[in-house]
Amino acid sequence: MSTSQFDLVVRNARVATASDTFDADIGIAAGRIVQLGLGLPPGRREIDAAGAFVTPGGVDAHCHLDQPMEAPVRMADDFDTGTRAAACGGTTTVIPFAAQQKGQSLRAAVRDYHERAEGRAHVDHAFHLIVSDPTEEVLKNELPQLIAEGYTSFKIYMTYDDLKLNDGQILDVLDVARSHDAMAMIHAENADCIEWLTRRLEASGRTAPRFHAHSRPMLVEREATHRAIALSELVDVPIMIVHVSGKEAVEQIRWARSHGLHVFAETCPQYLFLTAEDLGIDDSYGGARCVCSPPPRNKDNQQVIWNGLADGLFTIFSSDHAPFRYDAPEGKKPGGKEVEFRHIPNGIPGIETRLPLLFSHGVLDGRITINRFVELTSTNPAKAYGLHPRKGTIAIGADADLVVWGATPRQVRNADLHHAVDYTPYEGIDVKAWPALTLARGEVVWDGQTFHPRAGRGEFLRRGRPTLLPQAPQRGTP
Amino acid sequence: MSTSQFDLVVRNARVATASDTFDADIGIAAGRIVQLGLGLPPGRREIDAAGAFVTPGGVDAHCHLDQPMEAPVRMADDFDTGTRAAACGGTTTVIPFAAQQKGQSLRAAVRDYHERAEGRAHVDHAFHLIVSDPTEEVLKNELPQLIAEGYTSFKIYMTYDDLKLNDGQILDVLDVARSHDAMAMIHAENADCIEWLTRRLEASGRTAPRFHAHSRPMLVEREATHRAIALSELVDVPIMIVHVSGKEAVEQIRWARSHGLHVFAETCPQYLFLTAEDLGIDDSYGGARCVCSPPPRNKDNQQVIWNGLADGLFTIFSSDHAPFRYDAPEGKKPGGKEVEFRHIPNGIPGIETRLPLLFSHGVLDGRITINRFVELTSTNPAKAYGLHPRKGTIAIGADADLVVWGATPRQVRNADLHHAVDYTPYEGIDVKAWPALTLARGEVVWDGQTFHPRAGRGEFLRRGRPTLLPQAPQRGTP
Amino acid sequence: MSTSQFDLVVRNARVATASDTFDADIGIAAGRIVQLGLGLPPGRREIDAAGAFVTPGGVDAHCHLDQPMEAPVRMADDFDTGTRAAACGGTTTVIPFAAQQKGQSLRAAVRDYHERAEGRAHVDHAFHLIVSDPTEEVLKNELPQLIAEGYTSFKIYMTYDDLKLNDGQILDVLDVARSHDAMAMIHAENADCIEWLTRRLEASGRTAPRFHAHSRPMLVEREATHRAIALSELVDVPIMIVHVSGKEAVEQIRWARSHGLHVFAETCPQYLFLTAEDLGIDDSYGGARCVCSPPPRNKDNQQVIWNGLADGLFTIFSSDHAPFRYDAPEGKKPGGKEVEFRHIPNGIPGIETRLPLLFSHGVLDGRITINRFVELTSTNPAKAYGLHPRKGTIAIGADADLVVWGATPRQVRNADLHHAVDYTPYEGIDVKAWPALTLARGEVVWDGQTFHPRAGRGEFLRRGRPTLLPQAPQRGTP
Amino acid sequence: MSTSQFDLVVRNARVATASDTFDADIGIAAGRIVQLGLGLPPGRREIDAAGAFVTPGGVDAHCHLDQPMEAPVRMADDFDTGTRAAACGGTTTVIPFAAQQKGQSLRAAVRDYHERAEGRAHVDHAFHLIVSDPTEEVLKNELPQLIAEGYTSFKIYMTYDDLKLNDGQILDVLDVARSHDAMAMIHAENADCIEWLTRRLEASGRTAPRFHAHSRPMLVEREATHRAIALSELVDVPIMIVHVSGKEAVEQIRWARSHGLHVFAETCPQYLFLTAEDLGIDDSYGGARCVCSPPPRNKDNQQVIWNGLADGLFTIFSSDHAPFRYDAPEGKKPGGKEVEFRHIPNGIPGIETRLPLLFSHGVLDGRITINRFVELTSTNPAKAYGLHPRKGTIAIGADADLVVWGATPRQVRNADLHHAVDYTPYEGIDVKAWPALTLARGEVVWDGQTFHPRAGRGEFLRRGRPTLLPQAPQRGTP
Repeated sequence: MSTSQFDLVVRNARVATASDTFDADIGIAAGRIVQLGLGLPPGRREIDAAGAFVTPGGVDAHCHLDQPMEAPVRMADDFDTGTRAAACGGTTTVIPFAAQQKGQSLRAAVRDYHERAEGRAHVDHAFHLIVSDPTEEVLKNELPQLIAEGYTSFKIYMTYDDLKLNDGQILDVLDVARSHDAMAMIHAENADCIEWLTRRLEASGRTAPRFHAHSRPMLVEREATHRAIALSELVDVPIMIVHVSGKEAVEQIRWARSHGLHVFAETCPQYLFLTAEDLGIDDSYGGARCVCSPPPRNKDNQQVIWNGLADGLFTIFSSDHAPFRYDAPEGKKPGGKEVEFRHIPNGIPGIETRLPLLFSHGVLDGRITINRFVELTSTNPAKAYGLHPRKGTIAIGADADLVVWGATPRQVRNADLHHAVDYTPYEGIDVKAWPALTLARGEVVWDGQTFHPRAGRGEFLRRGRPTLLPQAPQRGTP
Repeated sequence: MSTSQFDLVVRNARVATASDTFDADIGIAAGRIVQLGLGLPPGRREIDAAGAFVTPGGVDAHCHLDQPMEAPVRMADDFDTGTRAAACGGTTTVIPFAAQQKGQSLRAAVRDYHERAEGRAHVDHAFHLIVSDPTEEVLKNELPQLIAEGYTSFKIYMTYDDLKLNDGQILDVLDVARSHDAMAMIHAENADCIEWLTRRLEASGRTAPRFHAHSRPMLVEREATHRAIALSELVDVPIMIVHVSGKEAVEQIRWARSHGLHVFAETCPQYLFLTAEDLGIDDSYGGARCVCSPPPRNKDNQQVIWNGLADGLFTIFSSDHAPFRYDAPEGKKPGGKEVEFRHIPNGIPGIETRLPLLFSHGVLDGRITINRFVELTSTNPAKAYGLHPRKGTIAIGADADLVVWGATPRQVRNADLHHAVDYTPYEGIDVKAWPALTLARGEVVWDGQTFHPRAGRGEFLRRGRPTLLPQAPQRGTP
Repeated sequence: MSTSQFDLVVRNARVATASDTFDADIGIAAGRIVQLGLGLPPGRREIDAAGAFVTPGGVDAHCHLDQPMEAPVRMADDFDTGTRAAACGGTTTVIPFAAQQKGQSLRAAVRDYHERAEGRAHVDHAFHLIVSDPTEEVLKNELPQLIAEGYTSFKIYMTYDDLKLNDGQILDVLDVARSHDAMAMIHAENADCIEWLTRRLEASGRTAPRFHAHSRPMLVEREATHRAIALSELVDVPIMIVHVSGKEAVEQIRWARSHGLHVFAETCPQYLFLTAEDLGIDDSYGGARCVCSPPPRNKDNQQVIWNGLADGLFTIFSSDHAPFRYDAPEGKKPGGKEVEFRHIPNGIPGIETRLPLLFSHGVLDGRITINRFVELTSTNPAKAYGLHPRKGTIAIGADADLVVWGATPRQVRNADLHHAVDYTPYEGIDVKAWPALTLARGEVVWDGQTFHPRAGRGEFLRRGRPTLLPQAPQRGTP
Repeated sequence: MSTSQFDLVVRNARVATASDTFDADIGIAAGRIVQLGLGLPPGRREIDAAGAFVTPGGVDAHCHLDQPMEAPVRMADDFDTGTRAAACGGTTTVIPFAAQQKGQSLRAAVRDYHERAEGRAHVDHAFHLIVSDPTEEVLKNELPQLIAEGYTSFKIYMTYDDLKLNDGQILDVLDVARSHDAMAMIHAENADCIEWLTRRLEASGRTAPRFHAHSRPMLVEREATHRAIALSELVDVPIMIVHVSGKEAVEQIRWARSHGLHVFAETCPQYLFLTAEDLGIDDSYGGARCVCSPPPRNKDNQQVIWNGLADGLFTIFSSDHAPFRYDAPEGKKPGGKEVEFRHIPNGIPGIETRLPLLFSHGVLDGRITINRFVELTSTNPAKAYGLHPRKGTIAIGADADLVVWGATPRQVRNADLHHAVDYTPYEGIDVKAWPALTLARGEVVWDGQTFHPRAGRGEFLRRGRPTLLPQAPQRGTP
């Protein structure tokens, strides 16, 4: 009798991890990678990668799916369409946000979010928490317990009226992160500055989408980044500054890291491929499609972001997928009409395009190595948020989440994407590669042409502690 | 018949690469890693790692062995004793220097060095070149040809009368590195400043070893580092600044990297474990043991170096092993007597202690992750100098160069070391771990107690191009 | 008949201005300098300076006198004793603060403060405003009117519960400064951080005076300094960061200035002559004498402040005189007993010692030129706050406010000082010089031994616009 | 009898010094300012300034006149035409260079230069030395003696084959500056880099004037600036970095100053009013007119220079007047024809336009105050080079070198200038003001229309020590 030991063998892979590139067959059993080698015995199923690059499935550590919004606004993607799009773009793990509303218990937010995910996801997923109301109960009980249960990260907002914390609250929440070894993500923009500018812009009739960028200039992000760093330094706890948009914020982060502070940073495709001009160069409203925060900057800042991806400044490359339809009353035209920039829902879609854009313009155009690509898009997000080494790598014991890369040039077209949004901000951008195959725990979910749905296939992941740093980190500055 | 496919299986390894840590058996055949997996079939030989960390064998990318010196000075270690010590300390690849003398052809230097290595080395080895006389012939013919033959890196000195190049020569040599895709290493200290200070110190009778540090203050290194960066920026070519000693040089390198320049940096154990006080706090001569250049600095600078190791500033951690006996006429007492600091041979031994010191004080003390340890000591040196992925990792197809880490606390004692030097500068330092086993291409060369000699086992490695950067790097600043 | 044209001639003066040093006689009439020259004709009165340095009378642009406090705390110095002490230390103009209480109108605060000053001051004086409640009425009416009436500067607090403004309020107030050409002073410390730290210190019983410094570490000041700079950049208006204490804040200010921002900075004697150890090195309470905010730092930071004084980073050197008796129920021991650091009134006296300390340790010890001394202590404060050229220089038309410097070494002794405080934090410090004569508008108020009182001699000064910058400043960064 | 005490009274002046602006009459006797006051008695001669700004005569601390050049090149201006042009532009003191040729004694160079000046100069003048051959004799004897005789400054070149010193020589020369309290000026460009680039440009046929800028990119200046700073730090001596052209050099200087180093900096009109495009945007040769070193940069760098003038980074604003005719065989067309950029004489004229350009575009356009103008163009040069307070200010005892400013808008036209050069690089630039009167030691040399020649009127000035720093400076970094 010869039942193979492998459910599947991916043969002739050009395997790329965050550190290495080598040729191997990948033996898979029970959804996990159990063997790597040359000339592995036959599996019950075989896929010939034919020398193509095979990378770990993407981990999108910053995306929003079916997150409750204030009516009439509603996110276009739920766990079904969102994870479908993820899979078709090579992402096999997503970490959206269970967002506490002010007045709501954090646990209730988590429970609600589980209900939204339940039975719908096509790929594995975990939840970050959003702490918007750090009551005594939240700080003393709910947050520590939820961390212990595997929700080992949470996001802090320094802007948005319904979400933002003041400095004292941030210190309190960071202190919980420190005591319970969770990772705090910070959205760093100064709320008061934005409000002050917005009022002035409005007072002079400057309300078209392009003024969104005017209301959030770089210094608004720089200031909050500096402040976030100072708060984390005070508490002595690592933080992740999310969606860093350009030079002035990057400089703050470089300063922090050069002083031995554990300040990590994430950036997103919009800061590589869009500029403020994509919000419009006149007062027309189409630019609402690209309204996100922080706003895209300019070409010089794009180059700074590329440099930071190449040289190690950034730890993570996420999508910040925030799916709002453009031509829809529940989307970018709340109530069905064009609105002042203040009222345009913030955020743009990108869960499916994240990996192909970076693989093509980063790896294939020679800006970053393929190993750095893997590190930014998969390994580091898995480490930062307690999923490594189950997720984020091609190694013995890891989940068989794999992407086989095809090399057919194409243009990004929304018509080809799988999210429920009616546009992509990256429409028309050339890419030289796209996933030819996505495996989620050994199962083909995308074959380069067709999505293979199985709602509920995706499992909820209880996460461990972050592992970007040593177990007993030496904190502090010299 | 059942000949195993494996010559050796290392079982129950806690494998650590530069990015991942996972449990696996390691199947080895013909000196290479051919399989990684759980429950591999038996090998002809078996080693049970019993859950211990197994890392790739160290690559010591900066060490000096049997390098011709001006009489009476002579290096204590040749390829026999040097590689013996390397192996016992977990290092399975060394890259010493074939040094051109002024007036000598580069090829002659290489030929001579091969003769010195031939049949003596216990571990694999390659040669960096030292270019001290960049004649037209060297620039046009010898250097390009030698690069093509696998000598894909060379060192440039900005100090030492018999080695130093002026700025114009450095530009010429860097231009060859650019055209032929070699890696240039730079010893960055300002020769004129050193000479000027030395004369003044001598004129006032300050000639004891401790004045070696006075003759090479931090600014001497900072200036040359800045200049090296500018020269590489002008030529648009990556460089490796070697043996970086402290804050002011680190700041220059950070500046360069933040501007998108491809400036890499190496540091060494002496800048973590020694200070200028180890050269003596009075005019006694014992401190000659620790005379090296740049000199060790102070505690604050040690912390800066630790920060740089942790946060990614440094690419490589080497020994800069320069083996001179202390109490010997051919060593630190030229002609048999104590001499003025100007005449003390520069350099200290460290080839065997490099990995245990960093593993213990870095990984086990929680300053860096084990993955970063592997990256700094093995993977990155292999990439920087064209040996990856054959060397520098645990992956399919890689040479079976492995270290199994033991965890018995001990103190560093020169009596326990295997080099031919009569002291170690690290005498008495506590370490919590030491290689329990070193495998060189699948062969046990060190078992934790005993060295297993086989001179000539080590092969000469023709090297490829550096792979730290993408194949078609985007050079330049924004 | 030969009535002299001069009421007074100060003869043989070694005149120092902010730019020049020259020998001249100074001809004074009606309280003003009307002539400078060699061999002026006799005045009705003559003073022979005998070649001594004669500098413009000091302008103390940051001092607190008789400012209403929450009971039982009360300032020891009113306009009588405060200006008496000022005069005896060479200061002939003071600018204390008319502080708005929350809920109070700004005009009422000014009116009240005039009552406190009326008929009491021995030297000329103006009022800064403190805006603690920027209501619509304040922003639209009171503040613009008061600026127009000669109160052309105001202070903004980022800390202290009863005074602090949030970022939005600061933007509003700065916008008034911009529209009406006033100078905004900013006390930059992050209130939330201080409160958070204070609670933690208290929770662990760390309440002795020395923990005051622990509750306000450098980063608390650095963060607020960065934020203040960002807010001023947003509004595009000059600001004055007051009482800068050390390196991290200085670095922020350097960054701002190097980017073309109009960020000015003030420092004070406590950051040159005290360290955190003066708050105590154990839990005894005597250190309450030196409790001020920001707290004094350490020797390294003192050197940074000296560098900033020498190289032009600082624009102004003030006392921040805040006169609380130590051994008094209305002073540092509220209610008569030693209290937790949180409850110790913040501030220390220094109005009389400011000039002698800097003259001696700055000018005479060779750290700064005498011209820079004049600039920091007199000319620049006068320019920054709209008093130049009437105040702040020795020039034709300027008020005859003069200091003739004596050169007798002495030690600072509180017994010798003229304030109403029962201690000086500078007790026992050696000085090499002290004012031998202070002239206020041509009148001798201090003769080196004796104060010549005439309460009400000091006039209230309506001030003009700041003149540190050109009339039509080019604002903004490149 | 009532002979007036004043030879001349300048009445109703709006006097501006480096620190103050005030209204006064200026009483002059024997070429000196002897009285300042309101309503001075009549002088033998009277000039009514009618409320116009009166500033100290300019001190042009960096200009080249009749400096021996390699044939056929010859400077167009000698001491006659050069000082004539200076006077007509408001400059009453010039400090050109007595340049040592290699092999020549320094004293011989000085003697020769005196012969060239003798009887020709219309305004006072001193000589900087240029040390190009620091022999033992020069270092030990000539230089110290010449300093003692009043040649208290010298220039060091880091580029130009016939002038440049290596680092060791620079250290030796700086050490003399330190011991004998002289000011060292440094031309900071890396010679090897320039030569290396020039050869490559030439090899590819890029020899038009515009490639001059390509041969000396910013980094060439940045590197040398950093090196000069390091050398001065090593020796512990102040230096003056001359003709700083843009951002990267400015950043080095800011770094130095923020570390307490005494690094001063000078800039020139070409870095405010020209860009590299003035060297040509194609291969035509007219741009040779603007060939100078360092080359002009771009608009962004111009703004950086403006910021540095405004915020105190720069100490001195000089012309670097280097007068070569354009259309002349002894000028920019050596031998009468257009030549490769390597052979174009470096330098541009500017001695007459320096003050009007900065007064108009700096003071009147609101970029700097008039006091800062005086400081940069007159007071600081006088202090830096040991001429203050005789030169550089309007104060009792100072030479009566004065400029009364007219306010008639005009355009710069070479036809209106008084140098012997056939062009001005500033042709056509609008200015809003020009000297209406220049007084040199009380004598009218320029009346706004006409130059009043008297060759030999200008005296040679023996200079004292630099006085920018305190007498006993606190050197070094914290």
